[in-house]
Amino acid sequence: MPLLSEKGRKMPASPIRKLVPYAEAAKARGIEVIHLNIGQPDIKSPPQALQAVRDADIEVLEYGRSEGSDRYRQKLAEYYGRHEIQISKEDILVTTGGSEALAFVLGCIADPGDEIIIPEPFYANYNGFATANGVTVKPVVSTLAANFALPPIDAFESCITPQTRAILLCNPGNPTGYLYTAEEVAKLAELVRKHNLFLVADEVYREFAYDGKQHHSILSQPNLDEHAIVVDSVSKRYSMCGARIGCIISRNKEVMQAALRFAQARLAPPTLAMIASEAALDTPQSYFDDVIQEYSERRNLLLAELESIPDVRVAHPQGAFYCIVELPLSNAEHFAQWLLESFELDGSTVMVAPAAGFYASPGLGLRQIRIAYVLEQDKLRQAVRILKEALKIYPDNAH
Amino acid sequence: MPLLSEKGRKMPASPIRKLVPYAEAAKARGIEVIHLNIGQPDIKSPPQALQAVRDADIEVLEYGRSEGSDRYRQKLAEYYGRHEIQISKEDILVTTGGSEALAFVLGCIADPGDEIIIPEPFYANYNGFATANGVTVKPVVSTLAANFALPPIDAFESCITPQTRAILLCNPGNPTGYLYTAEEVAKLAELVRKHNLFLVADEVYREFAYDGKQHHSILSQPNLDEHAIVVDSVSKRYSMCGARIGCIISRNKEVMQAALRFAQARLAPPTLAMIASEAALDTPQSYFDDVIQEYSERRNLLLAELESIPDVRVAHPQGAFYCIVELPLSNAEHFAQWLLESFELDGSTVMVAPAAGFYASPGLGLRQIRIAYVLEQDKLRQAVRILKEALKIYPDNAH
Repeated sequence: MPLLSEKGRKMPASPIRKLVPYAEAAKARGIEVIHLNIGQPDIKSPPQALQAVRDADIEVLEYGRSEGSDRYRQKLAEYYGRHEIQISKEDILVTTGGSEALAFVLGCIADPGDEIIIPEPFYANYNGFATANGVTVKPVVSTLAANFALPPIDAFESCITPQTRAILLCNPGNPTGYLYTAEEVAKLAELVRKHNLFLVADEVYREFAYDGKQHHSILSQPNLDEHAIVVDSVSKRYSMCGARIGCIISRNKEVMQAALRFAQARLAPPTLAMIASEAALDTPQSYFDDVIQEYSERRNLLLAELESIPDVRVAHPQGAFYCIVELPLSNAEHFAQWLLESFELDGSTVMVAPAAGFYASPGLGLRQIRIAYVLEQDKLRQAVRILKEALKIYPDNAH
Repeated sequence: MPLLSEKGRKMPASPIRKLVPYAEAAKARGIEVIHLNIGQPDIKSPPQALQAVRDADIEVLEYGRSEGSDRYRQKLAEYYGRHEIQISKEDILVTTGGSEALAFVLGCIADPGDEIIIPEPFYANYNGFATANGVTVKPVVSTLAANFALPPIDAFESCITPQTRAILLCNPGNPTGYLYTAEEVAKLAELVRKHNLFLVADEVYREFAYDGKQHHSILSQPNLDEHAIVVDSVSKRYSMCGARIGCIISRNKEVMQAALRFAQARLAPPTLAMIASEAALDTPQSYFDDVIQEYSERRNLLLAELESIPDVRVAHPQGAFYCIVELPLSNAEHFAQWLLESFELDGSTVMVAPAAGFYASPGLGLRQIRIAYVLEQDKLRQAVRILKEALKIYPDNAH
């Protein structure tokens, strides 16, 4: 029997997937499983986005352009202009989700054996793209005690080797919800200029900034045009995760030309989803105002409820819709499994994402979970009550 | 300025793309450019596929399953069953086009430095996926004189080294239109069994077999379950190139598990396109009968017209909708450019794909072009008349 490739054998499984069979078994037993584990918003997609697909007059569903349609890229450029990011459509390449954007970027900037520095905890799928490209992730640890702020810049600098190609940031962060300050972004910009590295920012949660805080894009940093590469997506912004439309944005012409060759090899992004995404750009600001108001309220509720549980420590996210929670127990993955296998409160239980999978350093995050607050407030309240009651009787509870 | 990766710099441009600016310039001069260069069928997509998208009752365009929906995979399995390929839905992973399927397969079976054997000429984007994965393509030359039949099996065997991981076949072939015989497929199956390699078949043109000939899938070979991996797509079958839905099919559980991890890293295939693809599976056989009748007539017309041109040699394809044509001149790429820059007949010219880009061996195919017969018969007739008149006056014409 032929052998798989080394990377085929090494590709990491998602940290959440391991729990899926337990969730399915719980559902099969008639238990309601409340999903705190996945960043699938319950918010409705903008109706005009879906309507545009219904209205599209298509007889032959043809290939689009590899870089995305001119019209969509032009409208995207205007969107970024409204967010104080001055770019032209030539700086944008449309991809199949933020995932493909990141895969192309890694391909453009890193060869097997190269290294990328990422503050941990980080979005677990970065590991998959790194493995697929033979790239090593060098983590720099951020802490719940510091609310997952940017670690000292020295910690990044000491990770730089001749193999380092880029620093990768998720801003606001998944799984931390941390929104980087202008000073933090400027410090990273200075560091990548000094060491001639790329600065890649996953800015898919850009709109989700709370408490009146501003998002600071790396594209707005001075003298960073050759270094800055942004990965973006419509998935979270418009609650259109199933569309699979994202983009790469960079003013570095070489990067964009290389990315285009990756894009040409796969022909084109999905046409129907691009139609929806183009129409989504006409979403009025009131949609975002409502969504941000809703997420902000959910976050406040979630934090208040969680902090009422003894010995639970909670990060205070100011962006995205995730929250890292440290529990008074030794292994959050065992707890997450136990919640699905052995616990229920009035016929319901919760599924959470163990946070260890978001760390690259072994042994970190073992007591932490990530909660996505993408549920209605009553549901969130119920979910936290379940966690609270579960912690009272969990056998491994150090409380 | 930070350096691109080696593979980022090496990613090949599509052999057709170089000509695009010349085609655009011709159009800007008011000249009609007849596209013989691209495999974008003019056939209408099945109306019920597009209608299913219009009818879909979606409020939140959510993530689908990484492997594709159970329902679509089940229906796909039934489709293959009707084509005498017995597989279950667990053997199928839905991808974003055949392109992603091939990218995942290469990732699963080959590490940087590994080798894949492919009969040339072959689909040029295989080079892109090989480069992205650091994999070396070892070509085995097939010839127009032999109608691009499978080269002697010894030629494959002599290419096998300890780095060889797979033989990759496109059946029926793009760009050759060659439909492999049962005996040829059986010989390859025997060879990969003997040397413990994977046999990867790109079978996206399965339906397009003419003259009453049968397509022979590698999935129907005995004792090949651990070796056989098929890449498929709805793009050509249903004239839905813009959907971007394909799949990987294999009974090798390890391959499918590794492919699933690649799929999980990119989350999910595009939902709207999967809805269209599922509905497309209900396309009645009469649609294919009509389409195959149409392509068959186009091919017959194309061959007859081309063979009326002195010193032009034409392959006789029995599948897909491509044809390799050898012209009486020294460099078909120059000719293709000249057609766009300097020639017109009654206000029209043609765009052809120079075939050298489909060969990995330097110097091969220089006198050849690939013609896609995806145009109506009157247009095809006009296109060949343009070629014929152009060859009469082309300065480099050896005729």
